[in-house]
Amino acid sequence: MKQKDVKIPEATIKRLSTYINCLEKLDGDGYQVVSSDLLGESCQVSPAQIRKDLSYFGEFGVRGVGYGTRSLAEQIKKILGLDHIWTTVLVGVGHLGQALLNFTAFRQHGFRIVGAFDADPAKIGTVVSDGVVIEPVSALDDTIHREQAGIGIITVPAANAQETADLLVEGGITGILNFAPIKVRVPENITLRNVSILSELDNLAYLLSNRTRRRSRKKS
Amino acid sequence: MKQKDVKIPEATIKRLSTYINCLEKLDGDGYQVVSSDLLGESCQVSPAQIRKDLSYFGEFGVRGVGYGTRSLAEQIKKILGLDHIWTTVLVGVGHLGQALLNFTAFRQHGFRIVGAFDADPAKIGTVVSDGVVIEPVSALDDTIHREQAGIGIITVPAANAQETADLLVEGGITGILNFAPIKVRVPENITLRNVSILSELDNLAYLLSNRTRRRSRKKS
Repeated sequence: MKQKDVKIPEATIKRLSTYINCLEKLDGDGYQVVSSDLLGESCQVSPAQIRKDLSYFGEFGVRGVGYGTRSLAEQIKKILGLDHIWTTVLVGVGHLGQALLNFTAFRQHGFRIVGAFDADPAKIGTVVSDGVVIEPVSALDDTIHREQAGIGIITVPAANAQETADLLVEGGITGILNFAPIKVRVPENITLRNVSILSELDNLAYLLSNRTRRRSRKKS
Repeated sequence: MKQKDVKIPEATIKRLSTYINCLEKLDGDGYQVVSSDLLGESCQVSPAQIRKDLSYFGEFGVRGVGYGTRSLAEQIKKILGLDHIWTTVLVGVGHLGQALLNFTAFRQHGFRIVGAFDADPAKIGTVVSDGVVIEPVSALDDTIHREQAGIGIITVPAANAQETADLLVEGGITGILNFAPIKVRVPENITLRNVSILSELDNLAYLLSNRTRRRSRKKS
C-alpha cells in the first residue's frame, strides 16, 4: 500500500466503506470479477469517482478486466483498518444504543461490542445482544481493561456525554464515536468523531431549500 | 443573502448546523454578542474556519465587535432553510426510529414529525411522542397529503428500504433521509441523503489505524 502523506478526503473514506458492502453483495450474487461500471452501478457512484478514490491508495484491478471482487473488498478493509477486530464498548442503552447493539453490520466490519453500560439500575443485567449483558457505568474501567477495548461509543443524553467521554479516556479507550447531541472534549491523543444526526437533517433541509431557490430563479 | 452559484462544501453546511446550537447555548448563557473566538471555543472550530464558512453567504457581524448572538443564529437558520416548519413523516418505529422520535432538537430546528408508521400490527395505535400515534404503512399516502409532509425519514430494515422510499415518493415527499444500511434509488427530482452509521465507525477505525501507522513511522 503506497499510502503517501496525502490528506484523503473524508468523503472518499465514506465511499470506501460503502464499496465494501457493494462488493460483498456482488460477491454473494456470484460476481468474482467486477468492472468499475458494475461496482458504480451497484453503489450509485460514478466509475470515475471509484477509480479516483482507489487511486489514493495505489493500483487495483487489471485494466480492461476489472477488480477481483473479494480481493478488492479485502484490500479496502485493510486500507480502513478493518482487517482486524476492534473491541468496542457502548455507553447508554437507550433506543439509539439498543439500535446500534442490534446492528449486525458492525460485526461484519470487524467491530465487536464487548460491553454495554447504562446508569439506570433497572437495566443492569439485561442481555442485549450476542450475550452482552448491561453493566453499571462503574464497571466501565474494569471491562475496558479486561477486554482491552479500543473504541467507545457514546449514546447517552447530552448532559452525561462529557463525563462519559472522560470515563472512557480514563479507562484507556483511544477512539470515541459520540452520538450525543453535544460536542465532547478529549485529550489530543484520543481520536474523536462526533456524529450529528440533526446536522444530517439540517443538510437535507438546506439541499431542499436550495433546490427550490434555484428552481424559482430559473422560472423568473 | 448574496448566495452565489458557488458549491458550498458539505462540511461547511454541517458546521453551520453546529453553530446554531452553540449560538443558542451562548444566548442562553447571556451572551448577546459573540466574537468568532468565543463561538469557536464553544463549537471547537477555529475562528478562521467560522469566518470562512460564513463568508460563503455574505457579510455578518461587525469588525472588532462580533456577531449578534441571536441574529446570527437566525441568519444561519435562514441559510439552511430552517426558518420555517418542515413537516416530516418517519417510517419504521424500531429502536432507531423511536430514538429519532424522542429527539427534541429536531423540533428546535423546525422539523415537526406529523406521522410515524410501522408494518407491525402490534405497534399501531401506540402514542410515540408529541401525540403522534403509530399508523400502518397503508395510511402513509393519506397522512402525507393531509399534513402536506415534505420530508420522509426511513428507519426500516434494509430489506424494506426501497419499497418505503417508493411509497414516500408516490405520496409526494420531496426529501428523504435514509438510515437503512442500504442505498435506495429515487427519481432525480427527489432530494435524498443516505446516512451510514457504519461508515462513521469505519471512518473512526481508519483514523485510528492511520494514527498508529504515522506514529510507528515516526518511531522508526
